[in-house]
Amino acid sequence: MRSTVLSRRDLDFLLYEWLDIEQLCKRERFADHSRETFDGILDLSEQLATRYFATHNKLNDANEPTFDGERVTIIPEVKEALDAFAKADLLSASLDSEVGGMQLPAIVAQAGMAWFQAANPGTSGYPFLTLANANLLVAHGTPEQIQTYVAPMLAGRFFGTMCLSETQAGSSLADITTRAEPRDDGTYRLFGSKMWISGGDHDLTENIVHLVLAKIPGGPAGTKGISLFIVPKVLVNSDGSLGDRNDVVLAGLNHKMGFRGTVNTVLNLGEGRFEPGGEPGAVGYLIGEPHRGLFYMFHMMNEARLGVGLGATAVGYTGYLKSLDYARTRTQGRSVATRDPSQPQVPIVEHADVKRMLLAQKAYVEGALGLVMYCGRLVDYQHTAESDDERRTSTLLLDILTPIAKSWPSQWCLEANSLAIQVHGGYGYTREYDVEQHYRDNRLNPIHEGTHGIQGLDLLGRKVTQQGGASVAALGELIGATVARAGEGSELAAQLDSAWQRLVSVTGAMFASGDIEAAMANSSIYLEAFGHIVIAWIWLEQLLATEGRDGDFYDGKRQAAQYFFAYELPRVGPQLDLLESLDRTTLDMKDAWF
Amino acid sequence: MRSTVLSRRDLDFLLYEWLDIEQLCKRERFADHSRETFDGILDLSEQLATRYFATHNKLNDANEPTFDGERVTIIPEVKEALDAFAKADLLSASLDSEVGGMQLPAIVAQAGMAWFQAANPGTSGYPFLTLANANLLVAHGTPEQIQTYVAPMLAGRFFGTMCLSETQAGSSLADITTRAEPRDDGTYRLFGSKMWISGGDHDLTENIVHLVLAKIPGGPAGTKGISLFIVPKVLVNSDGSLGDRNDVVLAGLNHKMGFRGTVNTVLNLGEGRFEPGGEPGAVGYLIGEPHRGLFYMFHMMNEARLGVGLGATAVGYTGYLKSLDYARTRTQGRSVATRDPSQPQVPIVEHADVKRMLLAQKAYVEGALGLVMYCGRLVDYQHTAESDDERRTSTLLLDILTPIAKSWPSQWCLEANSLAIQVHGGYGYTREYDVEQHYRDNRLNPIHEGTHGIQGLDLLGRKVTQQGGASVAALGELIGATVARAGEGSELAAQLDSAWQRLVSVTGAMFASGDIEAAMANSSIYLEAFGHIVIAWIWLEQLLATEGRDGDFYDGKRQAAQYFFAYELPRVGPQLDLLESLDRTTLDMKDAWF
Repeated sequence: MRSTVLSRRDLDFLLYEWLDIEQLCKRERFADHSRETFDGILDLSEQLATRYFATHNKLNDANEPTFDGERVTIIPEVKEALDAFAKADLLSASLDSEVGGMQLPAIVAQAGMAWFQAANPGTSGYPFLTLANANLLVAHGTPEQIQTYVAPMLAGRFFGTMCLSETQAGSSLADITTRAEPRDDGTYRLFGSKMWISGGDHDLTENIVHLVLAKIPGGPAGTKGISLFIVPKVLVNSDGSLGDRNDVVLAGLNHKMGFRGTVNTVLNLGEGRFEPGGEPGAVGYLIGEPHRGLFYMFHMMNEARLGVGLGATAVGYTGYLKSLDYARTRTQGRSVATRDPSQPQVPIVEHADVKRMLLAQKAYVEGALGLVMYCGRLVDYQHTAESDDERRTSTLLLDILTPIAKSWPSQWCLEANSLAIQVHGGYGYTREYDVEQHYRDNRLNPIHEGTHGIQGLDLLGRKVTQQGGASVAALGELIGATVARAGEGSELAAQLDSAWQRLVSVTGAMFASGDIEAAMANSSIYLEAFGHIVIAWIWLEQLLATEGRDGDFYDGKRQAAQYFFAYELPRVGPQLDLLESLDRTTLDMKDAWF
Repeated sequence: MRSTVLSRRDLDFLLYEWLDIEQLCKRERFADHSRETFDGILDLSEQLATRYFATHNKLNDANEPTFDGERVTIIPEVKEALDAFAKADLLSASLDSEVGGMQLPAIVAQAGMAWFQAANPGTSGYPFLTLANANLLVAHGTPEQIQTYVAPMLAGRFFGTMCLSETQAGSSLADITTRAEPRDDGTYRLFGSKMWISGGDHDLTENIVHLVLAKIPGGPAGTKGISLFIVPKVLVNSDGSLGDRNDVVLAGLNHKMGFRGTVNTVLNLGEGRFEPGGEPGAVGYLIGEPHRGLFYMFHMMNEARLGVGLGATAVGYTGYLKSLDYARTRTQGRSVATRDPSQPQVPIVEHADVKRMLLAQKAYVEGALGLVMYCGRLVDYQHTAESDDERRTSTLLLDILTPIAKSWPSQWCLEANSLAIQVHGGYGYTREYDVEQHYRDNRLNPIHEGTHGIQGLDLLGRKVTQQGGASVAALGELIGATVARAGEGSELAAQLDSAWQRLVSVTGAMFASGDIEAAMANSSIYLEAFGHIVIAWIWLEQLLATEGRDGDFYDGKRQAAQYFFAYELPRVGPQLDLLESLDRTTLDMKDAWF
């Protein structure tokens, strides 16, 4: 039976037939690998995700973590699944072999992770955060910090979190007030409260490694005065054994609409419940230099943003497969042509409007997966660049594609989940089926790791203008090359080329106006138009990869590409018109008029 | 403090300043009324909705009805609220005085009902269904049936349901299999099972009056062989007292993503648990003539579709008001211009992107409310037509506007709820705030009372073509009159006129092609484009109603109209292009290619 978690066939197409990732094995970093090891990871991920994660996805949603004032209780299936995950060493897939990793390409690790995110986003939230945490430490921690914290994380003994937000500081990190007071021994004592901390407290592991943003008194105001600290739940002695309980205390849980399987917490630091070493404050260890915390955190955040895009895609994808399954077995009504009530009802997949809803989902989730995988390969190129030019180009492309890869799947794979409900009709609205949970789970993704609005500001206010527009130029070259490869006879290529040229000219006009306020006012719309054009490019790429190949799978790819260009890409026309007009309707709106 | 349930100021504008409903009092049916009685209903509705309904909306969601195999348990706040509602005689607002009603205009009853649907859609589901039921009986029942069932409904002693769907027959009512066997005394015995029955069982009232579609053996196949029956939960003796328990048995509850406050059931008829009168089968009383059931039911259904549109609007509206409240009090970040971290944070309502999200919500919910109220006045014109022409025109307009009034609010006020979450950021995703529930509740509306796809087929396949396009012509005249009233200088009027002309010409081209399959394939897209043009017209109407009036409220209306024409109406361009091209992408898609 075909899996309804994710499509291995599609992953194989993207990884091997389109992106040709076997080429990566020619690079020194991946020289020990081959398609065999890649397939091994994909096989293993599918097996574990199907067996341990998918099986408790609904249970985890219906029985979310609880807090009795002392401890967090989580259903036992979560720990079983995470233990199986740790035992398979999957967490270390992409890490350097020198820190105990498998040193696999990031794209392969991503493809493996997608199975878990599709099967159970709540439970896979824990390793997802732990991996981001470990990656940051490997990149910016001291060898001792890596030894003390990363090794137990890879072994599944510690989990990690990222503690950025506070109640009064979400999108505006400049306003955090948690303070870190230096002590003579080089450590710090932290005081404050952190909000929205996923995986902030639980008994799933022996210890939790919090990465905490805080301000060292006397530092610069705003984001330039933020430092980053390791704050373990339980202090780790120099021999690796666990010591005193640190003063990081669970203040309460947030109760979410979806994504209920990942416990989400409010944490108090230095509130006085514990006094490690007989002194008040939560013990923290500085990472890197003071006041550079946000720079380090952005390393983790960019990776996390790609991860959010992947997660949104995975949840969209599983919803698509389930609604397809449903449409093939559910009979209802007859064809428009016959309508003869004496004839048996037909499977709803035969109705044009249902096909439209399935094709839209297919175009969204396979387009999104293509983009995220493409970004994964860019991460690998960046890490293993064989020239300065390659490093520079892959970095520029990642810079500009990250806000798209985060926001586009969050918006359109959520829409896919809504269509999956619609295909199910009333059944899709009930908790007896899976798709309503997917819709609730996926609604988180346009919010966390930088809201949709923040991604728009990042794209238009930072990425588009950086280095004199070098990122846009790099992407333009890439798109131009695809268009050229498609040839002059390709109508879709012409359509893409014209949309891209229009975007570039509108972008120029917006900045040429000199009215930055008006230019930035519609940055969310800009993000959406940019995203649709990028996905059209990804679809043209996939279309080209089907050339000369026959069979249902390739015909389906070709039809989905056709769909995207006929139904989706044209949406950007009115958006670009609006952007070009530097419309001031929202800017001119006054609070009192609402 | 301004209410966050609904805006009385806006209702007053729509009813009195725009639609001038005081004119209705000149008609004989409403001669006893005046603005005073209208205001009385609005005041009372606001008070009761705020005091009894809004107060348990979250509670009702968190503690949905349960079934222990014997009885349905519902939190007591629901009955308290419904008793208060019944005591205020609100159910009878629009009914004829001869059956004990207040004989108020439908539009006033709607406006009152909107308060309850905004405050608590779950609890207000019960009177909503009961009213639809009573209206059907008044229109098609015998005097005796009205006396026996309608009078106790108006008194709040009985509630009503509509039993159409079966497990294998949802959108395709032709396929119902519940059968009704005639007995010599003129009654029927029903056997079968009904699915998705809201309010199907509970102890909120002494009795429940089910209106059930079933087939009398030997009748024509398909929809032409469906009859309609009254099937009370408890039989009613000729003196009005309650008699035997009828054989309508609760088989189970459906557990929904939202709208949890309205119990949703599977009912078995004639399964043998009870044998009223010592005979098997559920006792049913035929309404009207045999085989005309679907015709009668459509009376109720059209009304229910307007009600769904109103409910979707109401839930969208309350979400808008709550996110506005939040945006005014939540501080975060600084203006793009200053960005000085030493300055205090600003309320997020000052950020352009937040203003965009609020303005979009305002344009959606006030536009939707305008359309639904406009339809309410059409119902009143239809009931009290002073000429054949008026009757014909109001009927044609209602015919064509009903699928729009059902689907457009269901789609766009759900989108408003999504934006309300987005304005709240992470807080909006938690159950500590209200908006996540609104989003879940509203997701039902594109499904029940005819899915989005069914509305598209109804609009394009039936309403647009009926009587040689008379409905389109009638709407075109209305829109033309508004455009003329706006005058030649009005850019918005020109934009609307051009969109409408384009829609008419595209519609013509679609049918002229002769390829009905291709024309119908994109009927959902047609529905969406048509809907946006209708709402643009409603906004132009509202804009004209602000002429010569000063103040924040009117400035807000003008800005929202501006927003709709700048950001929303242009969406239809690519949709109409697609429709005109008779694109076959979805039709050509094969099951095997997915």
